Amino acid sequence: MTAGALAFGPEVMAWADALAACTEQEEGLTRVFLSPEHKAAAELVLGWMAEAGMTAGYDAIGNVVGRYEGARPGLPALLLGSHLDTVRDAGRYDGMLGVISAIACVKALNQAGERLPFAIEVLGFGDEEGVRFPSTLMGSRAVAGALDPAELEVRDAEETSVREALRAFGLDPAGVPAVARRAEQVLAYVELHIEQGPVLEAEGLPVGIVTSIAGAVRCGVRLGGMAGHAGTVPMGLRQDALVAAAEIVLAVERRCSGIDGLVGTVGRMAVLPGAINVIPGAVELSLDIRAGEDSVCEAAVADVMAAIEEVCARRGVTHETERIHEGGCCACAPWLMEQLEAAVRAQGIRPLRLLSGAGHDAMAFGGLADVAMLFVRCTGGISHNPAESITVEDADMGVRVLLQFIRDFQPK
Amino acid sequence: MTAGALAFGPEVMAWADALAACTEQEEGLTRVFLSPEHKAAAELVLGWMAEAGMTAGYDAIGNVVGRYEGARPGLPALLLGSHLDTVRDAGRYDGMLGVISAIACVKALNQAGERLPFAIEVLGFGDEEGVRFPSTLMGSRAVAGALDPAELEVRDAEETSVREALRAFGLDPAGVPAVARRAEQVLAYVELHIEQGPVLEAEGLPVGIVTSIAGAVRCGVRLGGMAGHAGTVPMGLRQDALVAAAEIVLAVERRCSGIDGLVGTVGRMAVLPGAINVIPGAVELSLDIRAGEDSVCEAAVADVMAAIEEVCARRGVTHETERIHEGGCCACAPWLMEQLEAAVRAQGIRPLRLLSGAGHDAMAFGGLADVAMLFVRCTGGISHNPAESITVEDADMGVRVLLQFIRDFQPK
Repeated sequence: MTAGALAFGPEVMAWADALAACTEQEEGLTRVFLSPEHKAAAELVLGWMAEAGMTAGYDAIGNVVGRYEGARPGLPALLLGSHLDTVRDAGRYDGMLGVISAIACVKALNQAGERLPFAIEVLGFGDEEGVRFPSTLMGSRAVAGALDPAELEVRDAEETSVREALRAFGLDPAGVPAVARRAEQVLAYVELHIEQGPVLEAEGLPVGIVTSIAGAVRCGVRLGGMAGHAGTVPMGLRQDALVAAAEIVLAVERRCSGIDGLVGTVGRMAVLPGAINVIPGAVELSLDIRAGEDSVCEAAVADVMAAIEEVCARRGVTHETERIHEGGCCACAPWLMEQLEAAVRAQGIRPLRLLSGAGHDAMAFGGLADVAMLFVRCTGGISHNPAESITVEDADMGVRVLLQFIRDFQPK
Repeated sequence: MTAGALAFGPEVMAWADALAACTEQEEGLTRVFLSPEHKAAAELVLGWMAEAGMTAGYDAIGNVVGRYEGARPGLPALLLGSHLDTVRDAGRYDGMLGVISAIACVKALNQAGERLPFAIEVLGFGDEEGVRFPSTLMGSRAVAGALDPAELEVRDAEETSVREALRAFGLDPAGVPAVARRAEQVLAYVELHIEQGPVLEAEGLPVGIVTSIAGAVRCGVRLGGMAGHAGTVPMGLRQDALVAAAEIVLAVERRCSGIDGLVGTVGRMAVLPGAINVIPGAVELSLDIRAGEDSVCEAAVADVMAAIEEVCARRGVTHETERIHEGGCCACAPWLMEQLEAAVRAQGIRPLRLLSGAGHDAMAFGGLADVAMLFVRCTGGISHNPAESITVEDADMGVRVLLQFIRDFQPK
């Protein structure tokens, strides 16, 4: 390992910039699962993996997988990674930083000629955000053996199924079940990620150790009112789906405020038919509720559902709700947290433990292996936004801590 | 005139059905200004006009114009008409019924060999609804001499200007100013239209006489918050543009309720970036407020603007508002209302006078000529909706009354 300051930061930042150029829009970053931009980003990552001394390729679900053998071929692996897809109008570190930081670690080992008593695999998952298809974590769940092949039939807004999109990407969907790892091949899954929240910045720390990932429930809600002429239907006779939706948005905010770790968001809303002079006849909206404890999350979801019921009954508006995702809290393994803590201390940093409000690929691995996460500070806690940023110093420190952790790693 | 029952209704209904097939979607009706579907509908109307004995063609703004000369060529004209464009997911009578009923009247005169002491012109306006471009009544305002040529530069969602769309439609935008009529050429403008409200149905009457058209103000509102991760930004630190928009939607409803003739609608709303796990960073919404008196309308607009101001200040959300349309109330001419009333009575129907909550092409003619409107009952008062319907008997009665009015018409 190079001893100088910022041995890793500049390259990691340059890699993040290169990936950010793989975007579907001219300004800003949007890169969805199995898109041409996904392919472009994956090809860059494959190149960096090869340069870092890994054998690298795609698996059947579109993840990029690089393997760095240990002291002898075929040893069980420490899995490192994160995702390569983004939300719409995203930042350039959410997901990508975990993949490229892991590659930087392997590159350092390879340059030093170090082989460890275990293999390392770096995974760049194709779908974490769930932007294109009504499903999330498809890449990491396939690796963890937690992807039902029936999910390959879900369709995007253009009515393309995952199965069809995999084929168009050049992959064979029949290979998806074989992507799953056996538990004896996997020592642990460890993910580096930007915090996407304000805690590390407030504490003045470049990195922190995640204790658990908040559980989340996501629902789709469809409201049906009566479209009508905006000039002729008296206010009292309307069944305006948007006015009902507005009450629901405010009910979500009210119910999720004031309780530590609980958040609720309506991120998507489509108003139909969507003309200036037509009373909205239908609204589709999304609901995302998260909390550090499953019972807190479920209680909020139940109250929001009751509010939807009440608003719609009062306004003569129909409603259909569908739970499209639920994930319980995911606790990080104490033995891994302790080893991460030692690596943080070794860099002279106070080890802070914190909750992750955001979901991560690590959640998918609960059934397969123990998991842990290292958070890197991000400016203003801003994420899912083009303003997302980190410093080159913090990027560097993330790699240093992860590399220390890898070198000292003791399987359970 | 044929004396038998339903002399006109079946043909008018068949024409409405034929026009409804000129639509951009497979199910339902959407036909916007200067689209291929507009061209298809206009060609049908031109054919019917020719069959009815009119000379017919396009004017430079894309209106269909048919002229039936009076006792000698070149006499001043009674203008009849309505529009051929639709809202999204529209009904098949809003607008079209006024055009085809007028053609049916001319056809009856022509078949009977009747020439009147004035000409008749039937106008099928290309843009009343303002769906495609951020502008309304472009067709009728051009004829009335109330269209600023600068408006040809406004652009649709694909960034096509009206000027470009006119050219693509096969028209010469340079001819638009010459579309305007001189006052001495025009005796009056009379429009038949479905009521789009519940009054005639409640009164058990097939037709009614409009006293005035409600004034309307339309605004575009853009809210700017801060996009962020739905899992990590605490509720209290959010600047969620959609939650602000929800408060505004409810403020519009609250302010416009309980006052006779006042209505307020948010018909359009776009939420950006629009992902399930991202706090909305921006919202664009439309505002449409109407009342039977201009002062009532303006007072409501002012209060809604104050509410937007207050909500945005409290939530740390920016706002830009733009008035994209304002039209004062348009009073119908008493001398025309009296002649319409006589025609209604001649059919054995109680003449009812009523306010129009909806805007109509007739509003554009205020500066050029006296105007009047005849309303035809529509089922359930439902309009701007695929469920919009009228009976063949009422369609028939609309033509009978309009034909009687034309035959007995005495210029001022």
